[in-house]
Amino acid sequence: MAFEKLVRYQVEGSIYYGDLIETAETGFKVRRLSGGLGGFQPQGDIDTVNKLLCPLEKTPIILCIGLNYKKHATEASLEIPDYPVVFTKPSDALAGPGEAIPISPGAQSMLDYEGELVVVISKDCKNLPEDVDLSEYVLGYTAGNDVSARNYQLPKAGGGQYSYAKSFDKFAPIGPYIVSSSVIKDPQSLKYVTRVNGKTVQETDTDDMIWSVKAILRHLTRGTTVRAGTIIMTGTPAGVGFFRNLFLQDGDMVEVEIEGVMKLSNIIKYEDHASKM
Amino acid sequence: MAFEKLVRYQVEGSIYYGDLIETAETGFKVRRLSGGLGGFQPQGDIDTVNKLLCPLEKTPIILCIGLNYKKHATEASLEIPDYPVVFTKPSDALAGPGEAIPISPGAQSMLDYEGELVVVISKDCKNLPEDVDLSEYVLGYTAGNDVSARNYQLPKAGGGQYSYAKSFDKFAPIGPYIVSSSVIKDPQSLKYVTRVNGKTVQETDTDDMIWSVKAILRHLTRGTTVRAGTIIMTGTPAGVGFFRNLFLQDGDMVEVEIEGVMKLSNIIKYEDHASKM
Repeated sequence: MAFEKLVRYQVEGSIYYGDLIETAETGFKVRRLSGGLGGFQPQGDIDTVNKLLCPLEKTPIILCIGLNYKKHATEASLEIPDYPVVFTKPSDALAGPGEAIPISPGAQSMLDYEGELVVVISKDCKNLPEDVDLSEYVLGYTAGNDVSARNYQLPKAGGGQYSYAKSFDKFAPIGPYIVSSSVIKDPQSLKYVTRVNGKTVQETDTDDMIWSVKAILRHLTRGTTVRAGTIIMTGTPAGVGFFRNLFLQDGDMVEVEIEGVMKLSNIIKYEDHASKM
Repeated sequence: MAFEKLVRYQVEGSIYYGDLIETAETGFKVRRLSGGLGGFQPQGDIDTVNKLLCPLEKTPIILCIGLNYKKHATEASLEIPDYPVVFTKPSDALAGPGEAIPISPGAQSMLDYEGELVVVISKDCKNLPEDVDLSEYVLGYTAGNDVSARNYQLPKAGGGQYSYAKSFDKFAPIGPYIVSSSVIKDPQSLKYVTRVNGKTVQETDTDDMIWSVKAILRHLTRGTTVRAGTIIMTGTPAGVGFFRNLFLQDGDMVEVEIEGVMKLSNIIKYEDHASKM
């Protein structure tokens, strides 16, 4: 792999991929990369920037897993089904680190976070076996927030289908970088926390997952082509706001931190009715 | 609009868009078009071909509406929710007219058809009003089959989320052509039938829809960018196989015919375990 921490950033009007070398008070020091998902090559240039963009410009689709932590399944009083629970978000749901998440007026009444471990696929695949070599198909891992407008997720609202409530523009912030699968060899041995305005609301080990990353890949590729650049959000642990009747308000800061690896932060920004309806 | 019936086809190794002029025993007579979704321009060339491809090469996403016919809601004993029921299929689910639908071994046990009216979006849109001018945002209409592996759709299998069961490769055949929204001005005044091996199994007027095409567009674009080329499957009427415990078998021919407009035909082709698992 030509990178350890894949980032995207802008310098003098052009956008590049890069390998993050150092985060200092003066900014992010990055080795510029050429190429793309098919293969990155390091260039000589070292850039220093103040801001990182979403590590992927776009994605074929965001595949999301529901109900994938044992403690969350208990919290939701839901029986664990025979296969992973799958829903989707479109490419326009992507947002980057530090980016404000605009909340459409209709989506403000029961807005919730879901901190998640995110997998990025490196090449087209289909019918993968369960004992797949993750380093062959996974570009890397990042942090993500599966932002959810619960008022549209309830059975009475949308028949119980999840995708709509989670597909609003920028409802899938990820980043700040993608750590190579050559660095994180075992995605089931991570710890992460979600914080709202600094207060911890979710905390989990990824070995609490019901379906491992390998089992998820096996399921998602069954008879189905999963394309390079596809993003998989692997499910959220216990502690979402819905079960405590505590929802996100305008100006709230949500952080998802994979311990020792990275921290994703986004501010919630309510849009007003007059300007956007 | 530069076309009435948009098709895609191959001549001498190159693929073109065209406007279908005539269907005769000798083949399809087509006026070649240049351009793309942003605007098609007629060329001088007239081609005659034996086969039409899927009228779109790819799509940003396929947005599907569930439970959208009053009689089907009754059949399914489901309460009508406050908003349309939404799920998705990925671009690789697309298939063309006459194309065999390959059925992965795991998806063969409870395989079902869903004949649907399909809407194709012509330009990026967001926050559309309910009184939208359809000709401005809809490229046209076509026939589609929302192929469904019911064994994965049951709550016990996948927690009741629909997308997975409907996202296998080629589970969204559409075509054979897209009739311009300048020709079909009112999508709520069509009739269509679904046939399996020549026997009518679904039959509906589109004025039985719970959510009109306009209401669907209003809902899908709320706070959410819907991109040019997006495909909307508008829901299926009463008569799916599931409620009669009759499922599709290897070699079955499924036809979706919009009366007086077009007929989509596809053969079901079971894949065997040895070659594809």
